[in-house]
Amino acid sequence: MTAVTYELIKTCKQSGARLGRIHTPHGSIETPIFMPVGTLATVKTLSPEELEEMGSQIILSNTYHLWLRPGEDIIEEAGGLHSFMNWKKPILTDSGGFQVFSLSDLRDIKEEGVHFRNHISGEKLFLSPEKAMQIQNSLGSDIMMAFDECPPYPAERDYMKKSVERTSRWAERCLEAHKNTEKQAVFGIVQGGEYEDLRKQSAEDLISLDFPGYAVGGLSVGEPKDVMNKVLEFTTPLLPEEKPRYLMGVGSADSLIDGVIRGIDMFDCVLPTRVARNGTCMTSTGRVVVRNAKYARDFGPLDENCSCHVCRNYSRAYIRHLVKCNETFGFRLTSYHNLYFLLELMEQVRQAIREDRLLDFRDEVFEKYGFNKPGAKNF
Amino acid sequence: MTAVTYELIKTCKQSGARLGRIHTPHGSIETPIFMPVGTLATVKTLSPEELEEMGSQIILSNTYHLWLRPGEDIIEEAGGLHSFMNWKKPILTDSGGFQVFSLSDLRDIKEEGVHFRNHISGEKLFLSPEKAMQIQNSLGSDIMMAFDECPPYPAERDYMKKSVERTSRWAERCLEAHKNTEKQAVFGIVQGGEYEDLRKQSAEDLISLDFPGYAVGGLSVGEPKDVMNKVLEFTTPLLPEEKPRYLMGVGSADSLIDGVIRGIDMFDCVLPTRVARNGTCMTSTGRVVVRNAKYARDFGPLDENCSCHVCRNYSRAYIRHLVKCNETFGFRLTSYHNLYFLLELMEQVRQAIREDRLLDFRDEVFEKYGFNKPGAKNF
Repeated sequence: MTAVTYELIKTCKQSGARLGRIHTPHGSIETPIFMPVGTLATVKTLSPEELEEMGSQIILSNTYHLWLRPGEDIIEEAGGLHSFMNWKKPILTDSGGFQVFSLSDLRDIKEEGVHFRNHISGEKLFLSPEKAMQIQNSLGSDIMMAFDECPPYPAERDYMKKSVERTSRWAERCLEAHKNTEKQAVFGIVQGGEYEDLRKQSAEDLISLDFPGYAVGGLSVGEPKDVMNKVLEFTTPLLPEEKPRYLMGVGSADSLIDGVIRGIDMFDCVLPTRVARNGTCMTSTGRVVVRNAKYARDFGPLDENCSCHVCRNYSRAYIRHLVKCNETFGFRLTSYHNLYFLLELMEQVRQAIREDRLLDFRDEVFEKYGFNKPGAKNF
Repeated sequence: MTAVTYELIKTCKQSGARLGRIHTPHGSIETPIFMPVGTLATVKTLSPEELEEMGSQIILSNTYHLWLRPGEDIIEEAGGLHSFMNWKKPILTDSGGFQVFSLSDLRDIKEEGVHFRNHISGEKLFLSPEKAMQIQNSLGSDIMMAFDECPPYPAERDYMKKSVERTSRWAERCLEAHKNTEKQAVFGIVQGGEYEDLRKQSAEDLISLDFPGYAVGGLSVGEPKDVMNKVLEFTTPLLPEEKPRYLMGVGSADSLIDGVIRGIDMFDCVLPTRVARNGTCMTSTGRVVVRNAKYARDFGPLDENCSCHVCRNYSRAYIRHLVKCNETFGFRLTSYHNLYFLLELMEQVRQAIREDRLLDFRDEVFEKYGFNKPGAKNF
């Protein structure tokens, strides 16, 4: 028996998108779902109480960052990450692989693992499938991710093939190293870049290991959006229907909807909180860059169609003032609103699946948010 | 009829300290009270909901800062400061005088007012009794402060005498310029430095103008603590019993208690939030510098005798981790705790007055917090 299971509730007759539920030791999650990112055991600027109030069902935290600071041993001693950060609902942790490949220039990839330098202190470090599992076992996340190689985009076919094969061997070692199967589950990560046959090879390798869930990795790394959609179109059908599918690192409103239409159940991204700290807000009429002068005397809410705590109590003029003065509370308000906006969008997506009208919903949203306009910036 | 009135409930038989209530258009305040400071229409890192939850009865905001950013006209257009920042309880605003004298090097003090440079843009500005009243009328604070001259410490007697006389003339002009007497009250500010006769002259001048409340200004500006206590001892008896007394810029636990014993009803200071952003916490066993290595594996609360939301839910180890990583949520937690700590201390002070034992309470607290130890740092 695995610690995490997926229940398919229904499939959208119009789009094929899935409505489901993931059961974990810390409760169940309605899918499709967006997961706020709490890199260092905190979703930047926000409290766990606020995350719960806005409807977060699960959050993601980063193995690499917590390994370096404060160290997984301290978190284990605190009773695990849930207890350490006072978050009682499910947590997913990544494997650290992505950070090793994206934050460190001096890395040396060997069969046993990756040698690299700490991006803060410069100290030499080594991460391997076994180490990534040991850290995540110490953190006690409900869903752990297998340690994979994350090749750059674009990557040569030959390189990608070798990488996929190594990722498969590493996946097997992850399952062997995992020491807490009753309380934690490991998801495998399908790699293969834009190569259909390599995605197929990767998926088959991992499925043979019978993971309780599968991520599609190596996307949202700089490729055009139509490449992402194409890869999803030929990858998700390879995955077993009775397991959840997670598209890593995606958090723009358009890509969330397009991902769900292509069979994805879970997403995470720092985008909503990162842009919030720059004063950029996601609204039902498109991006609002609240630090702009035109909002100085705008006493309306960030989004007049939003019913979040921020939109019910604070004006664009006030938030602009705080952001301009670099006041923390301003970034709390924009971060709260943006996360609420995406969580609410996902609730609307789930409702559209229930009503078998997700393609219609996509068209409505793309029109309303202005994603169809030439040169429009999504968010 | 003035917008703000004071009700003396009782006097501590042991210490002479006052228990009272201040009635304002936005509700009543139990005194003695500490007022958290929200310089730019936000108490740094915290939300109005949190301020209310922790027991804040009134907050202070700074006229000078709001005049520059976002401008008092914007706040007036928003319906005033309460509405702009979503704080429904009383607000006190200072006059801008202290900032003009402390933040600007290039100032030119004339009878009509003070010419100086904006500390952000360098732009030339002019603040006068009339302008300070106009700004505060736009902000709509319940309690406004008269525009005074804030001489440095120490100041020559001759200079101080001229300054006191100018402050009295300015106080009269403030009352004349005040345009919203039904909803806002102005307090006068007694100056005079450490000179008893000048404090007396200042108090008499202001009392003849019949302000609804009086501040003791020019303290907590670098003078030794025994000088502050001595000045209070000869100044508060000069003030009318039926009006509230406010000691400006004082927020260390020892000085709050010593001020109350000397007849003070109101205090404000940035100290608790400022030190919090440096990772320093006020606790019932003294200062806790939570970023210190010794707290890395300390899973107890910041203060085991504190029942605030932070101490009930978060450990020193977690808060240390956040502060070390410069994570906003860490500064939210330390700021919340420190303000709660002072607000709770003032509730204990009020209880000690009710029980006629404030001098005993002072001894107990000074012993417990370690203020009596040689070289002890207060907070």
